[in-house]
Amino acid sequence: MKTDIEIAQEAKLEPIHKIAENLNLSKDEWEPYGHTKAKISNHLLHTLKDKPDGKVILVTSINPTPAGEGKSTVTVGLGQALNQIGKRAVIALREPSLGPVMGIKGGAAGGGYSQVLPMEDINLHFTGDLHAITSANNALSAMIDNHIHRGNELDLDPRRIEWKRVMDMNDRALRQIIVGLGGPSKGVPREDGFTITVASEIMAILCLATDIVDLKSRLARIVIGYTYNEQPVTVSDLKAEGALTLLLKDALKPNLVQTIENTPAIIHGGPFANIAHGCNSIIATKTAAKLGDYVVTEAGFGADLGAEKYFHIKSRVGNIDTAAVVIVATVRALKMHGGLAKDKLAEENLEALKAGMKNLKKHMETIEAFDVPFVVAINKFPTDTENEVHFIENWCEEQHVEVALTDVWASGGSGGIQLANKIIAKTESRKKSFKPLYELEDSIEEKIRKIAQTVYGAKDIELSKHASKQIKLFEKQGWNNLPICMAKTQYSLSDDPARVGRPEGFTITIRELRASIGAGFIVVLTGDVLTMPGLPEKPAALNMDVTADGKVKGLF
Amino acid sequence: MKTDIEIAQEAKLEPIHKIAENLNLSKDEWEPYGHTKAKISNHLLHTLKDKPDGKVILVTSINPTPAGEGKSTVTVGLGQALNQIGKRAVIALREPSLGPVMGIKGGAAGGGYSQVLPMEDINLHFTGDLHAITSANNALSAMIDNHIHRGNELDLDPRRIEWKRVMDMNDRALRQIIVGLGGPSKGVPREDGFTITVASEIMAILCLATDIVDLKSRLARIVIGYTYNEQPVTVSDLKAEGALTLLLKDALKPNLVQTIENTPAIIHGGPFANIAHGCNSIIATKTAAKLGDYVVTEAGFGADLGAEKYFHIKSRVGNIDTAAVVIVATVRALKMHGGLAKDKLAEENLEALKAGMKNLKKHMETIEAFDVPFVVAINKFPTDTENEVHFIENWCEEQHVEVALTDVWASGGSGGIQLANKIIAKTESRKKSFKPLYELEDSIEEKIRKIAQTVYGAKDIELSKHASKQIKLFEKQGWNNLPICMAKTQYSLSDDPARVGRPEGFTITIRELRASIGAGFIVVLTGDVLTMPGLPEKPAALNMDVTADGKVKGLF
Repeated sequence: MKTDIEIAQEAKLEPIHKIAENLNLSKDEWEPYGHTKAKISNHLLHTLKDKPDGKVILVTSINPTPAGEGKSTVTVGLGQALNQIGKRAVIALREPSLGPVMGIKGGAAGGGYSQVLPMEDINLHFTGDLHAITSANNALSAMIDNHIHRGNELDLDPRRIEWKRVMDMNDRALRQIIVGLGGPSKGVPREDGFTITVASEIMAILCLATDIVDLKSRLARIVIGYTYNEQPVTVSDLKAEGALTLLLKDALKPNLVQTIENTPAIIHGGPFANIAHGCNSIIATKTAAKLGDYVVTEAGFGADLGAEKYFHIKSRVGNIDTAAVVIVATVRALKMHGGLAKDKLAEENLEALKAGMKNLKKHMETIEAFDVPFVVAINKFPTDTENEVHFIENWCEEQHVEVALTDVWASGGSGGIQLANKIIAKTESRKKSFKPLYELEDSIEEKIRKIAQTVYGAKDIELSKHASKQIKLFEKQGWNNLPICMAKTQYSLSDDPARVGRPEGFTITIRELRASIGAGFIVVLTGDVLTMPGLPEKPAALNMDVTADGKVKGLF
Repeated sequence: MKTDIEIAQEAKLEPIHKIAENLNLSKDEWEPYGHTKAKISNHLLHTLKDKPDGKVILVTSINPTPAGEGKSTVTVGLGQALNQIGKRAVIALREPSLGPVMGIKGGAAGGGYSQVLPMEDINLHFTGDLHAITSANNALSAMIDNHIHRGNELDLDPRRIEWKRVMDMNDRALRQIIVGLGGPSKGVPREDGFTITVASEIMAILCLATDIVDLKSRLARIVIGYTYNEQPVTVSDLKAEGALTLLLKDALKPNLVQTIENTPAIIHGGPFANIAHGCNSIIATKTAAKLGDYVVTEAGFGADLGAEKYFHIKSRVGNIDTAAVVIVATVRALKMHGGLAKDKLAEENLEALKAGMKNLKKHMETIEAFDVPFVVAINKFPTDTENEVHFIENWCEEQHVEVALTDVWASGGSGGIQLANKIIAKTESRKKSFKPLYELEDSIEEKIRKIAQTVYGAKDIELSKHASKQIKLFEKQGWNNLPICMAKTQYSLSDDPARVGRPEGFTITIRELRASIGAGFIVVLTGDVLTMPGLPEKPAALNMDVTADGKVKGLF
């Protein structure tokens, strides 16, 4: 079987100006970055503001398992399928982070015959957006430490600096560090740590900003830490928002590339899906909606995290109307939710599959609760048996739920035509309208409880003393009307990653809150969240190479 | 008076495809990065290998002073002047580092009517080269710490890791840090520190690599640290050179932009001028030489550091034949070398000027010693008096030295025509040929002594005990046949920055050596070298902004 990069390197890409021309972009509405990448002007959303938006389709999934679901692959495949049946579809995706590429993943841009290209560039530096975010984040850090070093006029408590440095790297040794050692010429010593760039609040801000003015005002609102009197200090107190905006001016422009079948794809922004909202930028989705009759986009992790935040955070801020949802599941992953071990997945096991359907069922209920129509996509793997696929199809029929088998990894768009037709039908027969599961006016505690109960199926929530104290503090600061950004394990509906399937009767423990005031949400942590990954025993980087004639090896 | 950015924003740029077409670049020999930047294929040097090279002109200067010399401005102005008189000139320059831009400088791409454009991009992320170097450098750091964390098979001594992390930022608090705190999941604690990206050995390597194969073998040779038995450990021991090369594959391509007068400029690489050799990449200079009949390039700091390393390191590795040298001086800077204080420079002072000529004289002797013809350029400032300028002109005439007054900041290329004509005459009447001042086969100590005596005018050198010990160690490793990269204050010919003019009878104290085996030179430190700058009291970043319609403010 060919690897993703082998398939990618055999593909015939259109020059990016062709892709841009096919989207009716005029010359001043886009800029080339090499021959196969481009950036689209932010001005386009203004120019086309009266043009009706295309229909937005969100791709989400059951709770992820080590077996893999292929959500990005289905997203790309569905976009290609829509184009194959004569629809004008544009795909909107997150851009990958370099750190995991060097670590475990080796690449992340769909797969097989449903991937975005040039995958070598997209997986490495791409158009530099993540580097710009790293620079802006760390310019702010340097300005904070310089402020303290220069006399600390703002009275910042060095023990209460919330703003961390970032690096787009999996670098465990930077998780907990001490900076400013070595005497007065080397700053003021304090504890610090690096997170990976995609966990920077600036990444979340870039993805939620509706234009450059909004970007700047969000940056200005970032809370960098607290004074000795525990009063919040913001970027605007430091007067740093202008420089940060300047550093981000090009990163704010969405990137245009194409899929292996030359379907246009806008790849822009990729915030963490736990301490942030895990969706590509609002600007990317809205730009895609102006350029296509259909937009296929995805959200991070399973529907309990990704779709919930997509609706409550991204869609609310961006005023995005979602026409339909695809819930991706695989036979393998469902069997794992039914309790089967990873090394047993190749064997047919209808009992495990039946038990695992409960996980899918819960996510269906969640999308129902949001009042948006959906289709279940079974993303085919070579090990799936006919019995297993029939079982899921029959089960869905019993539930009066549309289901489509997709084979987009191996067959590209033609493996997603059934899904494309069913999803179009859903959008056309649509009577429903989006309904949030909590109101912004609810108290912070009430918002968390509603998410936990309605989306996770929890009995209740339990607040740590620290969290209770923080809620009071946040309410005092006037931060009570913001949406919630839950940071919970992606592997379970509960806060215990081992509890697969559909756990019941559980309580979600709220350990800590963080105020992402620039992004505009309150992060709620239910456990330890790792915001700086480490490298594995054998990093993917060890296999990477580039030949004398420029051919890339070791991305997959 | 208009600022650099105001002048830049009024300029009319040609689309970059025009600049590329004027250089006879075919479509597959370059890639656009936006409408005004491009990258040139590394393959071009191979395609044009039989085409004779254009004449290379090096711009250097007297020892820098706080008064400013305008070396980059003269470089750009001379290139423009050559084009104005009908010659086909291409400029080759270093790319600026973002850190100092955010700190003090606010911008570094020439000035006035002799600057390279788009200055907003060149001064910020440009085409991402520095970000790629940062990524490669820090990927290596992560792999080193991961190696130790995973059992340390190579027996690396955590106290003897030479490889530091980097950031393209002025961030004093990162100079001295402790990483790996927090227990077994967070790596192995050790002392570390960040340098600024341009001080990374990878930057030096990128600038000395002749192609991607050479790049990879240089990366493989980097010494990252020593074992507990004090044996060197290299990148190839870690098997990281493939991944690092991959991360640098686009950064290795030189960047094409234009000056304010649409003269083509190749801006590529910018290593530190103390712990590295301070010149733009060999690939940039050689590419420029293939595309132009004249190449105007510069080296960092004054001739004692910049030109010396340009000749002994860059030209030797790249086999670059330099046709002539420009030594830039200003009335103001010469007066400072004559002992005048900075706040007195606006007043005419012929005595100070006369005293300061000694500094110029020494650099003239140095270029003579290299056996390359030169012209002195007096870069005009508004405060210069006629008497002062005449004094220098007469002085040069007495020395039988060609001198040209340039006014390129205010007048662009037309302010450099006299210089252009004189430098062409020098290259055409050239009988001399380059002569190195030391042989690679000389001992390390002898090489240092020859530089100190011939270039700085020192009486002798004095080695610290530590340095003597290191020399023995390096010789044992077989590192004795590498060129020397001196790290000395740029402000004085001696190792004491306060000794302006032409100090005599001094000794150069050699404190420490560093082995940059990948770059291929031995760094010799004569004092403390700051490789991570800090931000000033009021960072330039505080004045930066970008308006709603994308206009940039605060770069200058």
